[in-house]
Parts: sequence; C-alpha cells; structure tokens
Amino acid sequence: MTAAPTRLSPFFLDDTGLHLLDQRDLPLQMSWLHFAPTAAGLEGLAQAIESLAVRGAPAIGGAAALGLKMMAGASTATSAAAFVAEQRAFVARLRRTRPTAVNLFVALHAIDSALQLTLDEVGDVGDVDVVDALRREVGLAADGYVDADIAACKAMGDAGAALLNDGDVVVTICHTGALATCGQGTALGVVKSARAQGKDVAVVALETRPLLQGARLTAWECQQEGIPVTLITDGMASFALARGVGGRRITRAFVGADRIARNGDTANKIGTFNLAVACAAHGIPFHVVAPTTTIDVGCRTGDDIPIEERGADEVRTARGTPLSPPTVPVWNPAFDVTPARLIASILTERGERRPSHEGYDLGDV
Amino acid sequence: MTAAPTRLSPFFLDDTGLHLLDQRDLPLQMSWLHFAPTAAGLEGLAQAIESLAVRGAPAIGGAAALGLKMMAGASTATSAAAFVAEQRAFVARLRRTRPTAVNLFVALHAIDSALQLTLDEVGDVGDVDVVDALRREVGLAADGYVDADIAACKAMGDAGAALLNDGDVVVTICHTGALATCGQGTALGVVKSARAQGKDVAVVALETRPLLQGARLTAWECQQEGIPVTLITDGMASFALARGVGGRRITRAFVGADRIARNGDTANKIGTFNLAVACAAHGIPFHVVAPTTTIDVGCRTGDDIPIEERGADEVRTARGTPLSPPTVPVWNPAFDVTPARLIASILTERGERRPSHEGYDLGDV
Repeated sequence: MTAAPTRLSPFFLDDTGLHLLDQRDLPLQMSWLHFAPTAAGLEGLAQAIESLAVRGAPAIGGAAALGLKMMAGASTATSAAAFVAEQRAFVARLRRTRPTAVNLFVALHAIDSALQLTLDEVGDVGDVDVVDALRREVGLAADGYVDADIAACKAMGDAGAALLNDGDVVVTICHTGALATCGQGTALGVVKSARAQGKDVAVVALETRPLLQGARLTAWECQQEGIPVTLITDGMASFALARGVGGRRITRAFVGADRIARNGDTANKIGTFNLAVACAAHGIPFHVVAPTTTIDVGCRTGDDIPIEERGADEVRTARGTPLSPPTVPVWNPAFDVTPARLIASILTERGERRPSHEGYDLGDV
Repeated sequence: MTAAPTRLSPFFLDDTGLHLLDQRDLPLQMSWLHFAPTAAGLEGLAQAIESLAVRGAPAIGGAAALGLKMMAGASTATSAAAFVAEQRAFVARLRRTRPTAVNLFVALHAIDSALQLTLDEVGDVGDVDVVDALRREVGLAADGYVDADIAACKAMGDAGAALLNDGDVVVTICHTGALATCGQGTALGVVKSARAQGKDVAVVALETRPLLQGARLTAWECQQEGIPVTLITDGMASFALARGVGGRRITRAFVGADRIARNGDTANKIGTFNLAVACAAHGIPFHVVAPTTTIDVGCRTGDDIPIEERGADEVRTARGTPLSPPTVPVWNPAFDVTPARLIASILTERGERRPSHEGYDLGDV
C-alpha cells in the first residue's frame, strides 16, 4: 500500500520503491508508475525518463536522484568498491537518458562526487560500515538535490512575483509547474507566488506542440490549483499579444529553461524562441525562470548547447492520432535556443539578473 | 457514375450535381461529397463550407459559384421574378457560411449582379426564355469566377517564381495549393511555377494548428506533386529560420490571404502573423500571394476585417483526439492580421506590388 503525496508532485519514494506520476497520460488519466529497487527497476526508470513519463529539467534530476537513493538503499554490496561500481553503472545509465537538461547531470554529479569524497576519505575497504556510510552519502546527496530545488522554486517564485501587478496576464509555454520540478514550479511558480500575495494574475498557456505539455499539463495544473487559464495554439501568440485574450492584455512572459549558457542564451522547449520573438515585437518583457543548476557555464553561448532531435512520428501525430501523410519528412528538435538579447531578465533562486550593457555574464551566478 | 477530375481540384460539376472533395478526411482518406441540385443539396453545400469540407478563400468562392450554377440549371421557376427570388435566397444562405474570406462575397456578388443586370434589361416577365437567359447568365458568371481564378493562379505563380532561385527553400503556413483554389494554388502555386521553370525549390510546411491544414493538406499535396517538403510544428518557425532545415537555409516565406485591407494588412490563417514576425526577426522576405478578389478596399486597415472565432473544441482536440482538460477555456480565432509593414510584397494576378515609402495603397489594384 502506498499513498500519493498530498501536494502536487511528480514522484515520491517509499519502502517499496520509487513512484512516478505518468505525465504522458495526463490530463485524461492519473496513473502512477512503480519502480522496484532492482536493476530492472532502475532500467525502467531510465526508460521512463527517455519516454517523457517524467519531464521538466528539475524533475528529471529529482527522479534520477531518488532512483539512485533507492538503489543505494537496496544494495547488497559488501565492499566499498563493489558499491561504488554499482552506483556508477546506474549513474552512467541515467546519464544517457536525455542530453539537453543540465539539471540531470548536476544531480548525477552531486551523487558521484559524494561517493568519491567518501571513498577518498575511508579508502576502498571491504567493510559493511563503509558501505553504510556510502549509502548514507548517496541518500543525503539525493535529498539535498530535492530540498534545494523546493527552496529554489520558492525563491524564484518570490523574485518573479515582485514583477507582477494585480490584473496582470502571463503568457507561458510548455509546463513549468509542480510536476516539472521538486517544488511549486519555475515559471508557473511565479504566478503561484503572485497569487499567494493576493494579486489576480491569469495565465495564457501555449499548447506546445508536438507533445502538448501546455494543453495537457499547464492547463490541468492551473485548473487543479484554481489559476485562471486560457489555452491557445502556439501560432496564436502574436495575435494574442496584439489583441489581448478575453479582454485582458498580456503583460509579461515567463518561461522555464532546460539549459542556460554563460551569455544568457537559453535552451528551452521548442517554440520558446518563437514566443520570445513575438514578445519582442510587441514590447512585452520576456523572463526566464530557472534554478542556478540550469546554468551551464561550460557553454559559452547557445551554440554550445546540444539539442536533442526526436522522432518524426511525434510531429506526424498528436497523442497517437495521425495528422499527416505517414511518410512525410519531419524536423523535430525538442528544444530551441532563445538568444540572450530577447531575455529581459533571468530569475534564479538568487534573485533577478538583468543584462548589463554588454549582455549577460552568468559565470558568477 | 462520376469520375473525379484528373488534375488535383477541390470540386467538379456534372449532370448529377456538385462533387466536393472532403478535405477534412485528407490525407487519410480521399472521399467525395455529392450535392444534388435541390434545396437540400444547396443547404448541404452551405454546411460543407461552414464545416471546412472545402476551405481556402478562392475555393470557397468557386464552390459557392458552382453551387449556384447547379441550382440555376435545375430551377423550375417559370418567371424571372421567381427565378431571381430563388437564386437570391441561395445567395443569402451561402453568404452566411463564413465571414472572413472576401472571395466568397466577390463570387456571390458577381452572380447577383449578373442576375440584376439581366433583369434590368429584360424586365420582370413571366417568360421561360427570360428564365433561360437568367440561367445562362448565372452559369457564365460562375464559370467566369472559376476561369479567372485558374488564370490568376498561373499569373501569381509566375510573378512569385521570378523571386525564387535554384536551391531556395520556402516556408509556408496553412494550405494554399490546388485544393484551396480553382487552379494550381496561390502561395504553393509559386513553388510549382518555380519548379516548372526547373528550379530546385523545397518547402518547409508549418502544420497549422488547430485544424492542421499544413500537416494534412500541404504535406499531402507536395508529396502528390513531387515537391520536396519538410513538416514542422508552428512553434519551430524561428528555430528553423535561424538554423535551417535539413542543411538548407530558408530563403523566403510565401503565404496566402483570406482578406487584404487597402493598406496591405492581411488576414490569413491563424499563425501567419507569428510567422511574419519570425521572418522579420531573421531578415527573411515575407510575401503574400492572393488574387485581387482577396483585396477589400472597403477595409481601410486590418482593424476593419471581421475575424471569425471558432469553437473551443478545435483547440482542445486534434482530429477528434482530446489533448487538454475538457473544460479548459480556449481562445480560437480562425485568422490573424499581419500588419502591412511585415510584408515585403503582395503578389496578385497583376504582378508584384511592393510598398511605397508610405506603405501600401491597394485602392488601384
């Protein structure tokens, strides 16, 4: 017997293993995947990440971290070397799931570093106490990632809410709510913080083809939490910005990020760049909301960010329904890169960063 | 027994009535609707226009014109007054089908004027010869609309092809091919003319949510006619313009129009404005291709163009498959208005019109 958590969350760990809300079935069905603390369970989790049962950069990191904590807890290794080898194989498998979101690599690196530090300290000895110490370090590192993300969501929300006034309407793309993170969300969390302050802030959600995270998840989460939302197709953005929606002008855009380069160029769900261009053309401030774990100072500009290209059938279909001739060639990048010059500010758990005269330099964030 | 026409066409008239290719079933199925020359048949045609079985501004006008020709041919009226009253009731019904495309009103007006002229000439007499004369005038006016559109498509295609070079890649939205007109198409016809001149020109087609005319019809027609095509979602436009598709840069955009105001502001399928903004941001010339029947000098600017808003379920679903929570509020304008300043030129059957220093004035086109 397991109980789903009371607040909206993409996953939870209990004595039986890791439970993951299958976001592919939302909003039509709320079903939970279960992964046992076995090699097969870990492989199932990796495949669930690959097939987008869990998505949203911070949540992917959280699912991977909790998966490793689960495996560490169940390990029967009797030497530090065996334990570390086991964990590193799992880390390697999870590292191969999705290439763009940097949070995954941050979470995996945190756990790998904790292992290495403990190993350096105690040495490679065949002692169950040492294995227990390593097990504990993995758990602490995993919980540390999750707790830091919850706190980061809260801090980002507060920083963004300071930009919002009563009556504002926020346009957003993809899904950046609780299901995409370990906490209240990133861009959608800003709206939650503003509403918690008593401001009447509404959302215009782009449906976000091809995988429809806006239609499926943002619309659903807004309705679940009582946030006024209007759903539009991605192509309606410019007309919505020009004419308003439901008699209200759109006043700001908040979006998430999968990876931010040092110069502020931001990889996020495909369609984000288009929305940023539309906002620029209409003088609407466009903000990126993401924890500092999303910033990859190893990428100098957006050109250094690897962009995942996915299968053609995602575009040829919608939720399995054929839309186009079955053989038509397709281009399906999962993300695009919004140039930093289109971004009014970047909100992290450390507050709001605006570009200087020369643009962004996020090396010190 | 009826035979579908050999060239790609949205409709044809024969002794049994009007045949209309049901474009809602494409590309999965090629089925023809049949409307008998009866009041019920005319009502069926009106509903087929309303429900988008035929779409594309010039084709809507053609379907309405041929529907009236069919009804005129089958009329049993024995006086000019009765015949004209009958026809005007049909005109009134067809006028109520869709509000934005001006071609429909042009076609209906041409037939109504032909009736009025003949009536003025011969007087309201109870003579079957006069009824025959009226019948003939309706047929001539209907054929005149269709033939003029075929010739206009050819002339527009030639004017647009002059802008294209070997190796060019054209981005387009919605469907503007043979099925949208009486001839080879408008924007897609430009690509056909260029390829007929031996230029290797490829197409990048936006899928065009919510009704997916790009995925369903442009992709299909390109494949039917051997035109290289790549399908992308609407939100991918900016990234495609920035990075190219399949190793080739996009060099120009050609789109159709449902109504063009005197100052060049252009109503076209929702998403067109977004594409125009993306093209402007990337320095890609954006061209509108439409017959002069699409220009409505009675509209001073785009603000004067009525915009049809359609039902929420078109956005909540794709080809009947639910995508979002069933109760989520939706905004669903069928068209948007691209400001004239984003339009490099307007191609009609009379050639290419570029804006002057003060912009467009299409009063003399």
